[in-house]
Amino acid sequence: MESNIIYVPIALAVLGLVFMWMKASWVKKQSTGSDRMRDISLHIKEGALAFLKAEYRILLIFVAIASAALFGISMVVETTSWLIVPAFISGAVFSALAGNIGMRIATEANARTAEAAKTSLPKALNVSFSGGTVMGLGVAGLAVLGLSLFFLFFTSTFMGAEGSFYDNMTMVLEALAGFSLGAESIALFARVGGGIYTKAADVGADLVGKVEAGIPEDDPRNPATIADNVGDNVGDVAGMGADLFGSYVATVLASMVLGNYVIRDMSAAAPFSDAFNNMGPIMLPLVIAGVGILASIIGTFLVRIGSNEAKEAQVQRALDIGNWVAILITLVSSWFLIQWMLPETMEMKFFDEGYKSVPSVNVFYAALIGLAVGFLISYVTSYYTSLGKKPVLDIVKNSSTGAATNIIAGLSVGMKSTFWSVSLFAVAIYWSYTFAGFYGVALAASAMMATTAMQLAIDAFGPIADNAGGVAEMSELPSEVRERTDVLDSVGNTTAAIGKGFAIASAALTALALFAAYVTFTGINGINLFKANVLANLFVGAMIPVVISALAMKSVGKAAMKMVQEVRRQFREIPGILEGEGTPEYGKCVEISTEAALKEMLLPGIMTIVTPIFIGVLFGAESLGGYMAGVCVSGVIWAIFQNNAGGAWDNAKKSFEAGVEINGEMTYKGSDAHKAAVTGDTVGDPFKDTSGPSMNILIKLTCLVGLVIAPILGGHAAGAEQALHTEEVRKEIRVEVKAAEGEDGKTTAVITTTTMQNGEEVTEEKVMEGSMEEIEAAVKEIKE
Amino acid sequence: MESNIIYVPIALAVLGLVFMWMKASWVKKQSTGSDRMRDISLHIKEGALAFLKAEYRILLIFVAIASAALFGISMVVETTSWLIVPAFISGAVFSALAGNIGMRIATEANARTAEAAKTSLPKALNVSFSGGTVMGLGVAGLAVLGLSLFFLFFTSTFMGAEGSFYDNMTMVLEALAGFSLGAESIALFARVGGGIYTKAADVGADLVGKVEAGIPEDDPRNPATIADNVGDNVGDVAGMGADLFGSYVATVLASMVLGNYVIRDMSAAAPFSDAFNNMGPIMLPLVIAGVGILASIIGTFLVRIGSNEAKEAQVQRALDIGNWVAILITLVSSWFLIQWMLPETMEMKFFDEGYKSVPSVNVFYAALIGLAVGFLISYVTSYYTSLGKKPVLDIVKNSSTGAATNIIAGLSVGMKSTFWSVSLFAVAIYWSYTFAGFYGVALAASAMMATTAMQLAIDAFGPIADNAGGVAEMSELPSEVRERTDVLDSVGNTTAAIGKGFAIASAALTALALFAAYVTFTGINGINLFKANVLANLFVGAMIPVVISALAMKSVGKAAMKMVQEVRRQFREIPGILEGEGTPEYGKCVEISTEAALKEMLLPGIMTIVTPIFIGVLFGAESLGGYMAGVCVSGVIWAIFQNNAGGAWDNAKKSFEAGVEINGEMTYKGSDAHKAAVTGDTVGDPFKDTSGPSMNILIKLTCLVGLVIAPILGGHAAGAEQALHTEEVRKEIRVEVKAAEGEDGKTTAVITTTTMQNGEEVTEEKVMEGSMEEIEAAVKEIKE
Repeated sequence: MESNIIYVPIALAVLGLVFMWMKASWVKKQSTGSDRMRDISLHIKEGALAFLKAEYRILLIFVAIASAALFGISMVVETTSWLIVPAFISGAVFSALAGNIGMRIATEANARTAEAAKTSLPKALNVSFSGGTVMGLGVAGLAVLGLSLFFLFFTSTFMGAEGSFYDNMTMVLEALAGFSLGAESIALFARVGGGIYTKAADVGADLVGKVEAGIPEDDPRNPATIADNVGDNVGDVAGMGADLFGSYVATVLASMVLGNYVIRDMSAAAPFSDAFNNMGPIMLPLVIAGVGILASIIGTFLVRIGSNEAKEAQVQRALDIGNWVAILITLVSSWFLIQWMLPETMEMKFFDEGYKSVPSVNVFYAALIGLAVGFLISYVTSYYTSLGKKPVLDIVKNSSTGAATNIIAGLSVGMKSTFWSVSLFAVAIYWSYTFAGFYGVALAASAMMATTAMQLAIDAFGPIADNAGGVAEMSELPSEVRERTDVLDSVGNTTAAIGKGFAIASAALTALALFAAYVTFTGINGINLFKANVLANLFVGAMIPVVISALAMKSVGKAAMKMVQEVRRQFREIPGILEGEGTPEYGKCVEISTEAALKEMLLPGIMTIVTPIFIGVLFGAESLGGYMAGVCVSGVIWAIFQNNAGGAWDNAKKSFEAGVEINGEMTYKGSDAHKAAVTGDTVGDPFKDTSGPSMNILIKLTCLVGLVIAPILGGHAAGAEQALHTEEVRKEIRVEVKAAEGEDGKTTAVITTTTMQNGEEVTEEKVMEGSMEEIEAAVKEIKE
Repeated sequence: MESNIIYVPIALAVLGLVFMWMKASWVKKQSTGSDRMRDISLHIKEGALAFLKAEYRILLIFVAIASAALFGISMVVETTSWLIVPAFISGAVFSALAGNIGMRIATEANARTAEAAKTSLPKALNVSFSGGTVMGLGVAGLAVLGLSLFFLFFTSTFMGAEGSFYDNMTMVLEALAGFSLGAESIALFARVGGGIYTKAADVGADLVGKVEAGIPEDDPRNPATIADNVGDNVGDVAGMGADLFGSYVATVLASMVLGNYVIRDMSAAAPFSDAFNNMGPIMLPLVIAGVGILASIIGTFLVRIGSNEAKEAQVQRALDIGNWVAILITLVSSWFLIQWMLPETMEMKFFDEGYKSVPSVNVFYAALIGLAVGFLISYVTSYYTSLGKKPVLDIVKNSSTGAATNIIAGLSVGMKSTFWSVSLFAVAIYWSYTFAGFYGVALAASAMMATTAMQLAIDAFGPIADNAGGVAEMSELPSEVRERTDVLDSVGNTTAAIGKGFAIASAALTALALFAAYVTFTGINGINLFKANVLANLFVGAMIPVVISALAMKSVGKAAMKMVQEVRRQFREIPGILEGEGTPEYGKCVEISTEAALKEMLLPGIMTIVTPIFIGVLFGAESLGGYMAGVCVSGVIWAIFQNNAGGAWDNAKKSFEAGVEINGEMTYKGSDAHKAAVTGDTVGDPFKDTSGPSMNILIKLTCLVGLVIAPILGGHAAGAEQALHTEEVRKEIRVEVKAAEGEDGKTTAVITTTTMQNGEEVTEEKVMEGSMEEIEAAVKEIKE
């Protein structure tokens, strides 16, 4: 069993994929309803696939260039094998495949959910959640399968070679980093491009349709309405899926890299060995991820409601129960897995503190912190963005004095919300590190990501329900159908807010784990802010997220303007379109969104990938570290700020739909306050769906690029060769004169002698009192 | 001469104050015009002084508490003398005094400028700029005088004592840091409190007056109009003055601290000596500051226009000439001062790089970089915020599609503008450090701040002109008077934008200099991001500016609401008020703004001061360093973002006053696009006048608090005693095996031996080829 442990995650991933396939077949067997519904659903599906196809074309070029670059690196750098190239390509293909599967099923499930809602709410929930489950399991299954298979392949290729275990494993993990880089590249396209797509279509459809022509949302007469619905799938399903796929793979990878350091540290005295082919600490994160898939499958069975009369609260509870059970199972399993797979006590080297003994249970505590912080950040996010909570009510209240005060209130909600999220995040860094070093930090991230399948199922269910509502509207189904899909949609909005919090938290922890892996990979002696080049690059790094946010926001504006012009043209040129007689050219709008999205994402995309390479090559590994820290610290804050401000504005606007009390008066849709709230929501749209989520990708990709190019920067000198083996001997004598020569001619001094050899540190301290001459003589003696 | 060099800055400061006194008398001799004008001017003056008085009451409590705390520190820490307390109090008093003088003269000069505008534009410029000059020279003169006198006093107190020069000088400078802390505390009250005041009055006056009652700006029937004009003085004159006073003192102080390290580094071989009582590098920044005052005085003589028909361009050119001549004189003088006062070659210790020889001319280059970057950042700021430039035109264009697109465009202008400013800033750090280490960085800041007197004169002239326009309006003076004051006001808006850029750049460079001083003060071995506690605190630090911005913005909203209610009440209750028959109770509105401002600034103020103390005491000096870096990096970015977005929105709105072309159509005030632009401006107001400028204070105060508490954190262990003398001996042997044992059984290794003693580092490198055994034997030999 132990020595074949790698087959456990493989088996669990396959199980997940099989279950996914079953769920997908079940969904497809459901009725799609009337011809009109089938038709609309088909339009959405075709639009979404058209976007994917266009995206793949650009991706092909990108992957070709990046592969060539990686191949070049692998030729120059000894520790990097050319096998990083197939890993990279596979990472991209696997992530794209997962997105494709998820989006196909999401677009299949929308009409079927609407049709099921004709029968009952429980059935509608079942269909829409099943659609989400397919997405979740597709992402998790393919991620674990890809990682495990490549790991199996690479270990069998490299581990037999001469050289130490650590060096060979470094080769393995560096090649595996290619898989992660490939996955994250797709996320860049899906998240940033998808974000621009969805908001361009949304804003364009609203501006001309709702505002100018005065037709309702999701009206089939609006040529941009299909593009708008496609956008929900492209942005919220495929974009979110690729984002989490990337985080998931990267956290596991970073944990494995840090596991390798644990093994190295423990090999200082004697070669490390355990029953898991001597690689327990490396295998652990993979196995936890596999178990997380199983736990998620179990969880999905619990997501069901009994009554047709159920309201939001019941639906939410059903999702919560599924989620909690999945988390609980993962947690309990982790406890046993950690006891089983890790040595009872590990020797870990802590920066500047030397070696410490870390009992394996500490790793569990770190994982617990990861889960707790992930949960709390999601909770904080939902507090700041939920209907009826103080922050949203505050924005509502400020809407009564106009758009300006609404905007100010929204901005400050977003800004304030960084307090708890960032504080929690800092606590997570501090405590998971205290418990188990950077391995602990990475495991905290891994634990949080373990139930990605379930998280994503819950996330993807929202847009399906949203689309189902759209289909119902466009097909003019009876009002009780729309009411049922609205219940699901409303729950979907809450889960979307929580899901965004989860995505940020996971991106931040992932980046941190990657950052830790980076520092150890390059072998630099820390990243010291006392060096001007590091400090300068910290500033540059912190600026990048802000500029990329600006670019993303502007892109939405530009793309939306193009959409507005196209819709206006169709209204003008297609006879009878507004009377419902002429057929709008939906395809044209889809095309415009697609082209604009992919064109506009180029600059931020290039900036994200090229800047770290540029800085690394020009200023060396330590400066790049400063840059990475800057990007992370600023990126996390701007992500939270933008996501939460956007979410809060959105729900402030929605508050008016049911009516809300302002200064004692009930205020509804159509009031001036509502109009002010609509302005806020329009500002918030690109915040929460484009620039905000782009930050996740930016911080992860920056750290991944850093990790991949780390070996070229080794020794941070041009053309430096990588050290295969380094031995260090250090002797430090420090004399501190605690009290100056006093009246009695005596001086008190503390003489500290630190001798360090191969990581073992011996410190001797001697306190002596005497004349300066005596002390100097004593120091001289020690020196020799 | 050389040994009495301290009297040079003292003499120049006194000269500046005498000149200031002359200017002030001249201004006061000018006619104040009609009774009505005198009356209005008096109202503004009384309101402003009422604010100051209320501020002083709170200040008294604050200063008492802080003094007690500082006294406590000085009792516990050996290297801190209790004399830090009088220095602190004096710093607060001097800054308050400078603000008081400046605000008095500004409120005296407004009616006199309006009266002078009756005669001619040149005369009006002369009066208003003279008012500004009083402020500028008051700030610079008092700052240099205070610093020099305390330095003289402290050196005569401490330098005779036993102990090394370095240790005694550390005592001197640490006590002197109290002066800087006192000054910056006033800035906190003046800038943050003043910022809340001015916007609460402005927004309150506009909302009820302009929007609800439909009466024009500055209309005497509006009860909040006096408060609004008071706000201009409180925020833009006293606030800006205190901000620059703080920056000015802090940069000089930080340069002196780093000068002390230069002396220490150079004393490694033999005791340092020069003609300036062995303290040339410490005295240099003080002398440069003194010369800057003289240069500014000369510059003020050149600010004059000849023709009554002059337009904005001529007025601007007059200001520019004065400014450039002052800068040029300072620059040329610095060249000679640096050659004269610094050793031809200095030995400076660079972190991780050991000692380097730095020719004194390098310090001049660093100063040059400071000046250049200060100028460029001001230029970038004005580009992003000026009428007729692309960013503002972009916002104008986006106003045509409503408030939402206007807001998005404004936000992204602010975000994008961080690119150049931050890049320039990074370049400044990198190059000034490369030239002359952290001493170079501090000197770069000092050089930039040297002409503060001139900068502030130009800055303060704007609000005076603005107020003059208000007085003219309220006193119903003929339209040509208003036209003339409008020319000055319009130039004042441009200089205000540039001045804000200058304030940010100076705050950022000051913070950096303080940061450098902090690191060296604490004696920690760098600030390493590889430690989890440092990283965690970097995140916390980066979050603080965002939260404080949110608090400041919300404060404006709350205070403005109170103002709105009061104005509504007066409109309702005072009979005949809107017909111009009843007299509004101006004082009530002034009171409300005053109270609200001072109450609302408490939380951000406490957060600013207490958080670093808390982190320092809890986590130690290195973590505090991480926190400080986080605050700086994020604070600078949020300052630039908020200031520039606010400035751009403001001018986008103003663009409509003269009419602007949007999509080929001329659009004017009152159009929908203009209304959208007004919304943007209202959002921008707290950005640019409250939360944005608060960032300057936040970053400086954080670093100053860090510097002051640094000695308690020394050795970053609880109750650690400060080392009076530390000697270090280090021997490091590093063996890198470049090529592994090949088929020939040979291994290539590089053995590097570094021996370091008292800062001198000797590195020997030996490349050898042979079997592993042979290499090991060689290493063993070296070890012994």
